[in-house]
Amino acid sequence: MKPITEAYKDFPILNKTHNGNRVIYLDSGATAQIPQVVVDRLVEHMTQHNGNPHRGSHVLAVEASEAYENARDRVVEFINAREREEVIFTRNSTESMNLVAHCYGVNNVQEGDKILITVAEHHANLVTWQYVANKTGATLEYMYLDETGHLKDGEINKIDEHTKIVAFAHVSNVLGMEFPVKELIEKAHSVGAIVVLDGAQSTPHMKIDVQALDCDFFVFSGHKMCASQGIGVLYGKRALLEAMPPFLLGGDMIEYVKEQTTTFNELPYKFEAGTPNADGAVTLHAAIDYLESFGMEQIESYEEKLVAYILPKMLEIPHVRVLGSTNPKEKHGVIAFTVEDVHPHDVATIMDSKGICIRSGHHCAQPLGAFYNVAASSRLSMYLYTRKEDLDAFLDVLKTVRSVMGYKD
Amino acid sequence: MKPITEAYKDFPILNKTHNGNRVIYLDSGATAQIPQVVVDRLVEHMTQHNGNPHRGSHVLAVEASEAYENARDRVVEFINAREREEVIFTRNSTESMNLVAHCYGVNNVQEGDKILITVAEHHANLVTWQYVANKTGATLEYMYLDETGHLKDGEINKIDEHTKIVAFAHVSNVLGMEFPVKELIEKAHSVGAIVVLDGAQSTPHMKIDVQALDCDFFVFSGHKMCASQGIGVLYGKRALLEAMPPFLLGGDMIEYVKEQTTTFNELPYKFEAGTPNADGAVTLHAAIDYLESFGMEQIESYEEKLVAYILPKMLEIPHVRVLGSTNPKEKHGVIAFTVEDVHPHDVATIMDSKGICIRSGHHCAQPLGAFYNVAASSRLSMYLYTRKEDLDAFLDVLKTVRSVMGYKD
Repeated sequence: MKPITEAYKDFPILNKTHNGNRVIYLDSGATAQIPQVVVDRLVEHMTQHNGNPHRGSHVLAVEASEAYENARDRVVEFINAREREEVIFTRNSTESMNLVAHCYGVNNVQEGDKILITVAEHHANLVTWQYVANKTGATLEYMYLDETGHLKDGEINKIDEHTKIVAFAHVSNVLGMEFPVKELIEKAHSVGAIVVLDGAQSTPHMKIDVQALDCDFFVFSGHKMCASQGIGVLYGKRALLEAMPPFLLGGDMIEYVKEQTTTFNELPYKFEAGTPNADGAVTLHAAIDYLESFGMEQIESYEEKLVAYILPKMLEIPHVRVLGSTNPKEKHGVIAFTVEDVHPHDVATIMDSKGICIRSGHHCAQPLGAFYNVAASSRLSMYLYTRKEDLDAFLDVLKTVRSVMGYKD
Repeated sequence: MKPITEAYKDFPILNKTHNGNRVIYLDSGATAQIPQVVVDRLVEHMTQHNGNPHRGSHVLAVEASEAYENARDRVVEFINAREREEVIFTRNSTESMNLVAHCYGVNNVQEGDKILITVAEHHANLVTWQYVANKTGATLEYMYLDETGHLKDGEINKIDEHTKIVAFAHVSNVLGMEFPVKELIEKAHSVGAIVVLDGAQSTPHMKIDVQALDCDFFVFSGHKMCASQGIGVLYGKRALLEAMPPFLLGGDMIEYVKEQTTTFNELPYKFEAGTPNADGAVTLHAAIDYLESFGMEQIESYEEKLVAYILPKMLEIPHVRVLGSTNPKEKHGVIAFTVEDVHPHDVATIMDSKGICIRSGHHCAQPLGAFYNVAASSRLSMYLYTRKEDLDAFLDVLKTVRSVMGYKD
């Protein structure tokens, strides 16, 4: 068993050079890199087992069905869902969230009801609820944060008898903060509200147990956890999924179709219209196997150590400001920051000139930026393949950013 | 340049054996196989250029954006769209069709209006319109076929001043029939209706020119044309797409997000929420390059020759009935058939025991089956990698099917 400090050797892209510099990838919060073993499993599937799942009794259709459904079973185990009927394959977290908004949200709230989210939400978990509020006459309200990224005192009490849906990021993609999940879920359930948890930024980095969390819906994306793009997951409690109308309509999600009427297939197929992305599912299966070969607990603690290493050093640099908490235990591998008087895009461009990949912009969370009065920021995000020397290289460039821009201090 | 008769050599899966038999893949209508060159381009992308498109200024985000947008440009050229704003990436034809139904259909028809489709439609182009009719109070009407799969005389006159949407398969996935596209589109436009063309079964097999067709929407899937699963296309005329509200909500499709309001991005991004499937787009780009290295006209005529070879031989076998036309020019590589008194699943199972992959079932077109009083059938479907010897092997087994089942003649 390889030590996690050598995980980077599994990722062929990390041998890439750019302008003579080794590429240092610190943008895993946007999309993760892919280990060779995941690529190999995909190639094997495409060249040995490719067929249309659920649509044939011949060897290749059967093998493709098995690959696809085995991937589902692997996800069930990975997040500890009760049963495979609760795991729906989608394109990504965004589609999962839209499915919940369109099929649960629109049908279960009305005028006078409240949908509650935090101001730190990703647009996928925000614009979707604007839509539901707009469509139904419900109100969309926000829980606000203090300077350290924690929920302000008393915000949780916004969960009241009018609240029907509470939706929030398990881990913020900007602040790296894990909200008080258990407390929020218990409070929501105590008033009869359901909880939609956005696990896009948590699932790749920590052990997820949807039964222990007791959330009602949970979404995540394969591409942030070493799988390919184009595959995501919606977990939902069976009773809720059963009661929801289907979302996309077409093949596989039907039972009987007559000219004017249709009956629908059972879970999980009811929500999977058209030819599924078995290729993507195979990569997600392989990615879970890969991540669990290290263990999610080890990945989480490794990233915490990296943050504990870099964060104090960043804070020592004059004019560098870190958004939210500066407690390494509360960053989950994500550090958003600004450099005074330097536009975040310039920070990213200077980094890129040295082969260092970080993200800059609004991180799909504009209301959070508005709340903190920081329209854009730069973001460093890590994964199991991140090395101390990557962080040292980042730090060396960060120290030069203001001088590159012509500032004297 | 390799002759098309040797295209099969490009497909590693065709070297597979099953129970000691060479795997003969005659189910390309469900999903096509993938040439090595497409696999190679995908691997290169995943291991050299993987990043999150549109979400960063670093080298990998830029390279991933280029790969994704170059794929879009390639599609624009391939189907001869006017401009790249008219080409939206989706998961598959089914999602494309749902997008049209939800964003155009629901908003543009009302009680008293008519939606017109053929009885041969795939469920994706049928259940979607049931939904729109149900939601809006419009009626869903059908154009019927004769025994040879042609539209019955006069059915086209169902397109009248009440008709707002005419939706049909460019090529039927069961009959292989190409409907009189130009005539239907002209007639629809003459009454002010728009036309949604389902190109899932035509695009892989013939040259598509959406401007010459003058359809208003056109959908197809990558996985039926040598790309991976999880990538599809919606083409729409710009003015229609501009006027439509967005479908899925989230990252990339927004412009400005405030707590209670959002403005949306321009085309084509307005309809692409969340991290796109750049991996899938890269395979679609590579697949188009591969198919065009032979030329779509050559692929079409090659398949026509294969049909002309096999179809008369099938018809000579007692108790074998072919659905729809028996004119090779009207089959487009798809032959659905029944063997008297043998269930299509048994036909497929007998074929599979010899390594031959064909599909059996309702082919996601139950109303067509009901119309012809054939609940299920078997289907042989071809592609550029199909060889005469594949068809000979199929024929040899087809001749034995009834005797295997215990019939004396």
